[in-house]
Amino acid sequence: MILILTPNINHEGEAYRHLLAHLSRLPNIQLRVHREQGAERALTEIYLIGNTSSVSVDEMKSLPGVERVVRVSEEYRVIGRHKGDDRAAHFEYQGVRFGQDTLNVFAGLCAVDTLENVEQMMRSLQENLQVCARMGAYKPRTSPYSFQGHGRKCLPYVFEMAGKYGIKVIAMEITHESHIAEIQEALRETGNATGVMLQIGTRNTQNFEMLKKVGRQQDFPVLLKRGFGITLDESLHAAEYLASEGNHKIIFGLRGIKTNLGDPHRNFVDFAHVPVVKRLTRMPVCIDPSHAIGSRSRGPEGILDLMHATAQGVIAGANMVLVDFHPEPDRALVDGPQALLLKELPHFLEDVQIAREAYEKRQALAERYIAMSSEREEKVLKLQPADTI
Amino acid sequence: MILILTPNINHEGEAYRHLLAHLSRLPNIQLRVHREQGAERALTEIYLIGNTSSVSVDEMKSLPGVERVVRVSEEYRVIGRHKGDDRAAHFEYQGVRFGQDTLNVFAGLCAVDTLENVEQMMRSLQENLQVCARMGAYKPRTSPYSFQGHGRKCLPYVFEMAGKYGIKVIAMEITHESHIAEIQEALRETGNATGVMLQIGTRNTQNFEMLKKVGRQQDFPVLLKRGFGITLDESLHAAEYLASEGNHKIIFGLRGIKTNLGDPHRNFVDFAHVPVVKRLTRMPVCIDPSHAIGSRSRGPEGILDLMHATAQGVIAGANMVLVDFHPEPDRALVDGPQALLLKELPHFLEDVQIAREAYEKRQALAERYIAMSSEREEKVLKLQPADTI
Amino acid sequence: MILILTPNINHEGEAYRHLLAHLSRLPNIQLRVHREQGAERALTEIYLIGNTSSVSVDEMKSLPGVERVVRVSEEYRVIGRHKGDDRAAHFEYQGVRFGQDTLNVFAGLCAVDTLENVEQMMRSLQENLQVCARMGAYKPRTSPYSFQGHGRKCLPYVFEMAGKYGIKVIAMEITHESHIAEIQEALRETGNATGVMLQIGTRNTQNFEMLKKVGRQQDFPVLLKRGFGITLDESLHAAEYLASEGNHKIIFGLRGIKTNLGDPHRNFVDFAHVPVVKRLTRMPVCIDPSHAIGSRSRGPEGILDLMHATAQGVIAGANMVLVDFHPEPDRALVDGPQALLLKELPHFLEDVQIAREAYEKRQALAERYIAMSSEREEKVLKLQPADTI
Amino acid sequence: MILILTPNINHEGEAYRHLLAHLSRLPNIQLRVHREQGAERALTEIYLIGNTSSVSVDEMKSLPGVERVVRVSEEYRVIGRHKGDDRAAHFEYQGVRFGQDTLNVFAGLCAVDTLENVEQMMRSLQENLQVCARMGAYKPRTSPYSFQGHGRKCLPYVFEMAGKYGIKVIAMEITHESHIAEIQEALRETGNATGVMLQIGTRNTQNFEMLKKVGRQQDFPVLLKRGFGITLDESLHAAEYLASEGNHKIIFGLRGIKTNLGDPHRNFVDFAHVPVVKRLTRMPVCIDPSHAIGSRSRGPEGILDLMHATAQGVIAGANMVLVDFHPEPDRALVDGPQALLLKELPHFLEDVQIAREAYEKRQALAERYIAMSSEREEKVLKLQPADTI
Repeated sequence: MILILTPNINHEGEAYRHLLAHLSRLPNIQLRVHREQGAERALTEIYLIGNTSSVSVDEMKSLPGVERVVRVSEEYRVIGRHKGDDRAAHFEYQGVRFGQDTLNVFAGLCAVDTLENVEQMMRSLQENLQVCARMGAYKPRTSPYSFQGHGRKCLPYVFEMAGKYGIKVIAMEITHESHIAEIQEALRETGNATGVMLQIGTRNTQNFEMLKKVGRQQDFPVLLKRGFGITLDESLHAAEYLASEGNHKIIFGLRGIKTNLGDPHRNFVDFAHVPVVKRLTRMPVCIDPSHAIGSRSRGPEGILDLMHATAQGVIAGANMVLVDFHPEPDRALVDGPQALLLKELPHFLEDVQIAREAYEKRQALAERYIAMSSEREEKVLKLQPADTI
Repeated sequence: MILILTPNINHEGEAYRHLLAHLSRLPNIQLRVHREQGAERALTEIYLIGNTSSVSVDEMKSLPGVERVVRVSEEYRVIGRHKGDDRAAHFEYQGVRFGQDTLNVFAGLCAVDTLENVEQMMRSLQENLQVCARMGAYKPRTSPYSFQGHGRKCLPYVFEMAGKYGIKVIAMEITHESHIAEIQEALRETGNATGVMLQIGTRNTQNFEMLKKVGRQQDFPVLLKRGFGITLDESLHAAEYLASEGNHKIIFGLRGIKTNLGDPHRNFVDFAHVPVVKRLTRMPVCIDPSHAIGSRSRGPEGILDLMHATAQGVIAGANMVLVDFHPEPDRALVDGPQALLLKELPHFLEDVQIAREAYEKRQALAERYIAMSSEREEKVLKLQPADTI
Repeated sequence: MILILTPNINHEGEAYRHLLAHLSRLPNIQLRVHREQGAERALTEIYLIGNTSSVSVDEMKSLPGVERVVRVSEEYRVIGRHKGDDRAAHFEYQGVRFGQDTLNVFAGLCAVDTLENVEQMMRSLQENLQVCARMGAYKPRTSPYSFQGHGRKCLPYVFEMAGKYGIKVIAMEITHESHIAEIQEALRETGNATGVMLQIGTRNTQNFEMLKKVGRQQDFPVLLKRGFGITLDESLHAAEYLASEGNHKIIFGLRGIKTNLGDPHRNFVDFAHVPVVKRLTRMPVCIDPSHAIGSRSRGPEGILDLMHATAQGVIAGANMVLVDFHPEPDRALVDGPQALLLKELPHFLEDVQIAREAYEKRQALAERYIAMSSEREEKVLKLQPADTI
Repeated sequence: MILILTPNINHEGEAYRHLLAHLSRLPNIQLRVHREQGAERALTEIYLIGNTSSVSVDEMKSLPGVERVVRVSEEYRVIGRHKGDDRAAHFEYQGVRFGQDTLNVFAGLCAVDTLENVEQMMRSLQENLQVCARMGAYKPRTSPYSFQGHGRKCLPYVFEMAGKYGIKVIAMEITHESHIAEIQEALRETGNATGVMLQIGTRNTQNFEMLKKVGRQQDFPVLLKRGFGITLDESLHAAEYLASEGNHKIIFGLRGIKTNLGDPHRNFVDFAHVPVVKRLTRMPVCIDPSHAIGSRSRGPEGILDLMHATAQGVIAGANMVLVDFHPEPDRALVDGPQALLLKELPHFLEDVQIAREAYEKRQALAERYIAMSSEREEKVLKLQPADTI
């Protein structure tokens, strides 16, 4: 059960102390306090953990200092959508809004190689009015003998270039908790030229110890990718590891499932799960068409499969797109075959825009039909009494 | 190797006889003649089967009566897209065009139960300007003790109702070759009130003996569904069984893959394969969102997952949608939980329309970028000689 | 519910007529009579189909002519093991016993190619004291352009050679119902020189129409292979199609599952399901190591993976082994890479024997422990009254 | 390329210095020295990393101080079996030999709960002459709200009890690098009462950063479990992460694959891969039947599926069995349903013994046939010259 307290409640004040004292007397219930400082107001939530079946929602609501109460189901307590749950499904970071209602494209280098390529990428993004980018510094590779990314060494110039070209958020995979401090330090050294969204890759989706550590910091939002051999449900539970430790700025990423039934694509594209994640949780949903498709093959219209997959995710309501570009894919150190060319960026963005507009039209259409149907039902309800008398 | 002869070539004439005589002298090559009678012209193709590596395309082209020559690769000889292959990727049936460039919706009953429901369905379709329908008479069921469909008994009234409400093509699954004759007879008895597209379900995708029989008739086009435990490649080879026997009016159907990694959907939606099938073969591609999704769950916008999946298929260029409707899903004998309500038909069709328009815009956008890019390349080519002098 | 009647009950007699008359008055229950003529006695079973929850087992047992009554659960009514169900888990054919307690090896040609190879194979089998063989005449192939087997043409010499070398049962895949008659005819023509076990391959596991036809004949026992993209449960339901039509001589075959997670093996070996099938049903279980492994690779001890997989199936209680041999694997028309050499037959059989003996020891060990544990429990029970007084 | 130096070579001596100087002049080749101190002798290996195609094996062999040279293929350089590679496929730890030729059973608690249960378990093991055990202190759980293991708190009494009952090696999963130090400390504090084999679970198979850390220590051998959604090849590459950092005492664990095609078992049992891992690498292979099967269901002979799966692994040459026992499975905090009862331990061990003996007989049989076949070939070779003269 989650108690959402009145905004800006004073943690030193009497009301709060009384409340806590009262709650701590509930038998077999543990308390966990979660506090989030927004631009204008501070939000406090208290989680009652344990068997809360005998705790009454109404009684909790009536306690001074409590604004709202959500009885969570067992599944996805913090990130889930529960009955009567009107907690937010969005957050802000670096002035950019990430929500189940927005769409952000993160184009960039799968693996940072040279300063020149980073700068060229950033410049292209700025020319195309983008404020987000993807940049891979730490690369988990199947073989220990493959290039593992430039790591901390490249962070200074990546962040500097981001600042120079107005990029506000960089999605960057980390593969160890120590990378958080490395990123923090490099940001500090570059005068916080940009912001970072920590990315947790499919191989670490159930690296619970790292999830706990990432969940404990609130500097950076987190993009958690689905694990490739586990069910969607298990991956969503992994997101709950982040949330239960206090970080609620989580985006969930779909990137395809490993099975040869997806051939000739690199992975089996799973973007039909976009609405599922949005229904079960309050997390925005990211799609990663580059890793899902893994090649530059194209349909007979001349459109890349990768762009088709992107359009499929977006028309179903995806909120973020992570996509690999590279100035010279042939020379990319990692995943070159799936990278788009810089000159394809405008086409890609326009294509995304068409799909997004279609999604918005579909949304408006659904609203119209829902409204019509409730009107009809209301009419029926209004008529019925008369009829039945 | 395929020789496409001049249209309307006279099979009794000398040119044809000479050609055949010549070809039959090619060593270790077998001939198979395929003739298709269109509305205006008869098309004759001759397949050279065997090791044709030493047969010259140019020599074949120069033979009297030969219009074009396609050297097919090993894969998907008849249905495939080969280099320099400009054979048609569409066909007509009952005045309706089915091609990689069109979109047809087949809404209807997964399993025919009563005349009343059939009539209600057909009437709704007509009201919504539809000329195609799906109607299941023969149902393959996991358990022998489940309802197996009304079979031939329901055909007369199904076809009659189709005729009454202007339905021109009914997609209908068959599970045994004998059903072809039953359908032919019932059509005849109802004065050919409508047309039928034979549907081969996922359990019979590799029922090669049935495929051969279905391939030998040319009365009916065929919708072949992907097999659920085999690769896409293997399913496309199954389509080749139909084609190699002479029936080239084939639509390939995607309907999801069986694996719990697709949970909570009934199957793992595979519509990212739409452009793949269109690239590898000349078959139009059908999507079956009802069997792929298998439920009426919906995203937080109130849009059914099933409609999201449909939009995903259509925005990537799907050419046919097979979708279950039922006047009273709760009473449906088969797959009720996934059926849409009749009153949802207009919403569904409008939603499809939005996705189709987005696809067409994407196509136009791609054409523009392709044109720009060739122009640029031409300019570069024009400039280069001057530069290099 | 199944009523097992007294053996040799006279279907013309009064007792039987009375029984049937009585049963036919049960409301909403349909009757299906199944009769099996053994060497010494005729067995009659009556299936009550419908909602039998209100029918009392005791009442049914008390009816004249009824020997035993089994209340079947919903799942696998005929082939299943139900509570208190002591129906046989074995059958005889051509003097060979096939049961959950026996082991038979069917070695032979995956695809019949020449008379010489058939004869060589049969001779080797006889030299090694085998009375069963596998011989493929009808081959389902992924591509229509691959060799499809010699079909009916090879049957006469296959059966003749079988007779010549004392082979009593040949396992032979059929891919169409018409093959049954072809086999019957060829057997007749060769003076019933041998017997045939019809094999239904993984591509036809859910070809329900063929299953029904095969189920309706009782000349031949049937080996039904598991479908490769469906769950075990669904494949067992397919076996029920055979059984519900009257043929109860069914062996269930495991042959691996198609997924790249089984690499480098051709399929993912599923022989851990041997005890599962034996627990859920009364069918003997066959394993097909050749198709499961698909290669001749071997472990560092020099033992083929294929022989390891066989030993794994047998030590867990498999009752039949289907295995590919070929005099010249390099020249085999189908699946050569997985075939064993004729000279490897003695080694293979001895290896199987070691695994079978281990299984029998394990069985004896389990019996000893089960006996000890019941003795102990009995002792406890005997002691308790004294103790508690 | 790997150079195996003469045993006990003096790293301060001139021969060694000369060798290193020479090797460091090879163009584009990096050196990595790996030294292992055995009971009697020190082993030094030098890895030449880079493009060694132009380096001659013979030249390297002729260098003073070099005993043997192995040209490794790209795959699994350190752990792999390469052509002409006679490096050891075994290691010793705590006086226990772990090799591709031995079998060790690790029975014990999936999750440590109470001191009493630990002691009871250890006592049973001693009574049954076991010197190895499994004990779970750190438990990775799908949900953050599930019991996560007692962690470091339970280590002291676990190690103490191990010492008391003569257990020499405990297999214990770690989920974070920091657990290594915790284990080292607890061992020290209990006077190194026992030894520990670090276990890396299926969720961390590709947690490369942890693998690197675990690979860098040589105190403890490592049991690396296969990742459940990746290919065998990818999991073997993960083992190479451990090996390339210096720890060569690695056992590879099979524990089943996650897919509903394995139902009703918890996972799809993959023990047919036992000989594959032994062929591709020099690692001993462990099987984990408890997690693979996940239940106590049994076949009609009364033998648990779990024991069948164990026998299947062992008869194919498995070298280690990890199996869950619990004094009171109903009260176990984790995975109770799959735990065996303490009183079942003797039966389990005897059953394993039967399978192991069968494996050894199979091995002897194979050797006999291999010898016969080479004799025959030799005879042929001896005869041929005479014949051909």
